[in-house]
Amino acid sequence: MFKLYYAPGTCALASHIALEEAGAAYTTERLDFKANQQNSPEYLAINPKGRVPSLVTDRGVLTETPAMLAFIAQSFPQAKLAPLEDAFAFAQAQAFNSYLCSTVHVAHAHKLRGARWAIEESSFADMKRKVPQTVGACFALIERDMLRGPWVMGEQYTICDPYLYTIAGWLEGDGVDLAALPKVADHRKRMSERPAVRKVLAEEQG
Amino acid sequence: MFKLYYAPGTCALASHIALEEAGAAYTTERLDFKANQQNSPEYLAINPKGRVPSLVTDRGVLTETPAMLAFIAQSFPQAKLAPLEDAFAFAQAQAFNSYLCSTVHVAHAHKLRGARWAIEESSFADMKRKVPQTVGACFALIERDMLRGPWVMGEQYTICDPYLYTIAGWLEGDGVDLAALPKVADHRKRMSERPAVRKVLAEEQG
Repeated sequence: MFKLYYAPGTCALASHIALEEAGAAYTTERLDFKANQQNSPEYLAINPKGRVPSLVTDRGVLTETPAMLAFIAQSFPQAKLAPLEDAFAFAQAQAFNSYLCSTVHVAHAHKLRGARWAIEESSFADMKRKVPQTVGACFALIERDMLRGPWVMGEQYTICDPYLYTIAGWLEGDGVDLAALPKVADHRKRMSERPAVRKVLAEEQG
Repeated sequence: MFKLYYAPGTCALASHIALEEAGAAYTTERLDFKANQQNSPEYLAINPKGRVPSLVTDRGVLTETPAMLAFIAQSFPQAKLAPLEDAFAFAQAQAFNSYLCSTVHVAHAHKLRGARWAIEESSFADMKRKVPQTVGACFALIERDMLRGPWVMGEQYTICDPYLYTIAGWLEGDGVDLAALPKVADHRKRMSERPAVRKVLAEEQG
């Protein structure tokens, strides 16, 4: 039995969907970011980074979305959420998720989390102004070179799909025009129709 | 036969060391960042992100350090560079590498790459001033909670070690005091004595 710590509107959605798609036995615990619960002593004892997601297992706690997604795929091989028997294909899926984590999510984070990397209000405003351009450039590359269709890796639905869906859900808020990203928009729509996604969203938004 | 594209002083060093430790058959090609070779049409055809590392294989090109490191470990299981038979332990190693990629390297990048996320010179200067604090906080967490010793994952040398070594090599330049990080400093010294590391550094610095 796993326990997923999440907050609505965060990248934890990707792991939440993956757990549901895998048919895992899991419970969830929602953190209240407005109350800064992610930095409470209780939560920092679980994840000293003060971020979500965290996945509590009987072996210990896992963090970092790409690692958690690969773990879920490997723990439930019958769900076929990654090409586990093909190291190269698995690496391609991991490279996609690593790009989302270290470049795309980071570009997005400069909209509201400027204080992570700078001190002055003027810098935060400057960073915020550039987000449509930086996130837009990332998604232009995803649209052009990465998203094979119908799913990220092609015919097979994988751990890349809930992660892309999660971050693509921030595009309007980031000021990026979806009209220029027809494949991404189509992927988002296809994802939103999956029963696992509907179930998870109903819980997170409930 | 693999071909690794790298530039000296970059995170490509981690994959370079891992290839050497794995006993892989590989060649290297050095890019001249001062000449902006990473954005040349020839290189963008290999890696449209214009970054290093890139690993050319007979199946295609791989990018993103965490994905490449896991791929090297899986492709050369006899080198025992990751706990491949234990999904949880593998996820812990991946979580460490993901943290280096998406948080620690990103914190460091705000020193010289502010133009990725902002427009004004004043913002770049502001970001740069915060780097000792942000990178220092990351490494304080690594020192306290993550680096088990003697290697990152404990007794077994893994793909986490060349990656930590690579990013820890930037600490002085980032204005972080190594004296407060005895385990990290010890790890760096132990790494620097490995034959694979000596060989790779001699090539990259040659």
